[in-house]
Amino acid sequence: MKKLFISLFMLLSMAGQAQMDSTSETIRSIYNLALSEQQGYKWLEELCSMGPRLSGSDQATASLLHFKEIIDSLGFESSLQAVTVPKWVRGPQEKAWIIRDGKKSEELAITALGGSVATPEKGMEASLVEISSFDELDKLDLKGKIAFYNIPMEPTYISTGFAYGNAVKQRWAGAIEASKRGAVGVVIRSLSSSVNKYPHTGSMSYEAGTEKIPAAALSTYHAELLSRALKQNPTLKLKMNMACVWYDSVESYNLIADLIGSERPEELILVSGHFDSWDLGTGAHDDGAGAMHALESLYLYKKLGLQHKRTLRLVFYMNEEFGLSGAKAYAKMSKKNSLKHVIAIESDGGGFTPKGLSIQSTKEMVERVKSYRDYFEPYGIYQFASGGSGADISQLGSDDKLLIGLRPDNHRYFEVHHSALDNIDAVNARELTMGSATLTALMYLLDRDDVCFNCN
Amino acid sequence: MKKLFISLFMLLSMAGQAQMDSTSETIRSIYNLALSEQQGYKWLEELCSMGPRLSGSDQATASLLHFKEIIDSLGFESSLQAVTVPKWVRGPQEKAWIIRDGKKSEELAITALGGSVATPEKGMEASLVEISSFDELDKLDLKGKIAFYNIPMEPTYISTGFAYGNAVKQRWAGAIEASKRGAVGVVIRSLSSSVNKYPHTGSMSYEAGTEKIPAAALSTYHAELLSRALKQNPTLKLKMNMACVWYDSVESYNLIADLIGSERPEELILVSGHFDSWDLGTGAHDDGAGAMHALESLYLYKKLGLQHKRTLRLVFYMNEEFGLSGAKAYAKMSKKNSLKHVIAIESDGGGFTPKGLSIQSTKEMVERVKSYRDYFEPYGIYQFASGGSGADISQLGSDDKLLIGLRPDNHRYFEVHHSALDNIDAVNARELTMGSATLTALMYLLDRDDVCFNCN
Repeated sequence: MKKLFISLFMLLSMAGQAQMDSTSETIRSIYNLALSEQQGYKWLEELCSMGPRLSGSDQATASLLHFKEIIDSLGFESSLQAVTVPKWVRGPQEKAWIIRDGKKSEELAITALGGSVATPEKGMEASLVEISSFDELDKLDLKGKIAFYNIPMEPTYISTGFAYGNAVKQRWAGAIEASKRGAVGVVIRSLSSSVNKYPHTGSMSYEAGTEKIPAAALSTYHAELLSRALKQNPTLKLKMNMACVWYDSVESYNLIADLIGSERPEELILVSGHFDSWDLGTGAHDDGAGAMHALESLYLYKKLGLQHKRTLRLVFYMNEEFGLSGAKAYAKMSKKNSLKHVIAIESDGGGFTPKGLSIQSTKEMVERVKSYRDYFEPYGIYQFASGGSGADISQLGSDDKLLIGLRPDNHRYFEVHHSALDNIDAVNARELTMGSATLTALMYLLDRDDVCFNCN
Repeated sequence: MKKLFISLFMLLSMAGQAQMDSTSETIRSIYNLALSEQQGYKWLEELCSMGPRLSGSDQATASLLHFKEIIDSLGFESSLQAVTVPKWVRGPQEKAWIIRDGKKSEELAITALGGSVATPEKGMEASLVEISSFDELDKLDLKGKIAFYNIPMEPTYISTGFAYGNAVKQRWAGAIEASKRGAVGVVIRSLSSSVNKYPHTGSMSYEAGTEKIPAAALSTYHAELLSRALKQNPTLKLKMNMACVWYDSVESYNLIADLIGSERPEELILVSGHFDSWDLGTGAHDDGAGAMHALESLYLYKKLGLQHKRTLRLVFYMNEEFGLSGAKAYAKMSKKNSLKHVIAIESDGGGFTPKGLSIQSTKEMVERVKSYRDYFEPYGIYQFASGGSGADISQLGSDDKLLIGLRPDNHRYFEVHHSALDNIDAVNARELTMGSATLTALMYLLDRDDVCFNCN
């Protein structure tokens, strides 16, 4: 990259920044402060250094309480909401091998899916049936076998979230469907957009009345290896060993922090991420990034001294990953107390360069938010679409609400999602920061808008 | 990320893909093939595995000849254009220390700027003057001192390219200005958008009639450390040792490969990247990514059997980094032979998610390219702006031409740019692939357009 190019590019960039109204100037000041300090990234480093935050773990609660101290030191009004969360613990060793002629052959990288029962202590061993589509299940004889779902994320979809959505059934319903047909265990191909040796966990489920069978994810690399090996030798077996344990549910918390509004304090603009993570990595993108987006957006609001008529509320939801118990408890409390959630925002798509907003509301409200687009385009935020918002805030009920999800670039997301790779080194400070500033600017625009959001 | 969210997001994505004309369908097929195969990434892995490609090095030419074999095996008509390139070689050790009371204290990570003369064999030692702006140069006494330019890239600019452009003068003009004022050496703050311990090199220059003084870049971390240390103790010294050597110029090549057009073969649509890199890393983003973008775009064109009236020409330029000799030689040859470059495209902004195109042409042509925007928006390409294109293609002359530069997301670019971090592990396969597909689609739209590009 050379002088000539740069100087022309500079002219271009400067031209784009020349004309500004006062709203644009305020938004510019938000991005300026955010990018100067990159405070959310520092907090994310601190959060990840405390380890994984699997809901039900002591670590998840301890990390939340640590962040309550940070939030209190910032002068927000914070509180904890008690939430009962499930407690499932991964075993110390998770192993699998291809068994050829009764002997252990290649070792395969696996990990228990969240919520799976354990294998017998000495492991389970069975031959396999490979499944490439749910449509073919009824044609297959799974009796006594390990069902091997090998359904890749479709690489040609531009949205990896769409590819994930199309392939995730093997994870959440794979054990149910296999168990109904007599399978003794399940391995799935990890929901990863690349081929590597890191297995990806995630929640799975059982159905009342069907046998609970152990369910694990193979790394994509090993799923492909196993598939090739099966084609050569359909009679080979898989041995797997997982010692995961279910315990009684435990108490944990949602964290709530408010900046009280000056004119309509009862009207809430909620901004949120979920605080829990999976246990293989430290949940840097999922959803440490979203939680820090939410925190940093309030921090920026306060540090800039921006006025707000409505109350800005941060919520760190506990246990998005394992049944949304935090979101359900919050929604229940909200309903009971007739809280007036005017707007709710969630960031749960990772800490990558933000590209847009997905808006879940009436057509009129969607158009209203779309009208802000010109303010955001200088920052690379251009995709304003009607669509889903976030799993946690959707619990508030979506029919008459304005729910908004931040949509970052997601080409890299499913490489790290739910795996041991989801750590701070996978997050870029500038990219993360752009997300926080975007949420701050969004809240600013929404608060100053005199449209009656959610007035029904 | 949960079922509910995903299923709503799927509906949204499907809706967006519902209505397609045949042009959209062809573009869709380009992205489909690209993302299925990710061939450019495989080539980039191969390229980077061969080592750095500093122009003038045997390695640069050997890697180019290896890629000529690959290109020939694909059935393109390829040729080499001889180019004379400078040969400068970094010394085996580059070291610097803070000297306190005559003794070596903290060691600092430095690297010679490209083109610097060496220090004396035993190193040079002098006290320092810190410079935070070129405006203050005349007020400072640099005589006998090491000039320490410590001008950070401005973090608040959304475009890191803009921030780079504003800070890069310390690298290319720092030695000239310091030498004029009697300095004996120069260290600059690395042009990096983050604070870490990796120094970033890049080309620098001397001016006839001024003393050639050694010039190096400190890692941003050590630039900050040195700045703090100087505030405590302005009399401390810096010792640095670099053994870089200038040799006589050598012969290398540009690589040219054509897919001959069916109707107007004499009209060229040129697509390019530069093949040379800096020597600290393996030039994965700068500009292996751009070179592979260009190659993959032609590969996709051919594999899909897309028709093209005009000739599609790939150029791998040699030596963008050290004086643009490949681009100058190519432009000279083009002029001599009256080649008809209808359109020229360059990718030299890294292999990150593409966001747009920067179009350097007449207003009419800029508007023409902007009219393609709707075809690209489903792929996240939305920034179509008038601006600089690329350093290499600009040598063709820009007044009456249509020159286009690919603009990827650049939040991460200047963390790795010109440093030991610019390796294949910093490149994401999907992100890279999106760039290649975008160039293919762009060539497709330009070729089928019957507008008379560059008809003067």
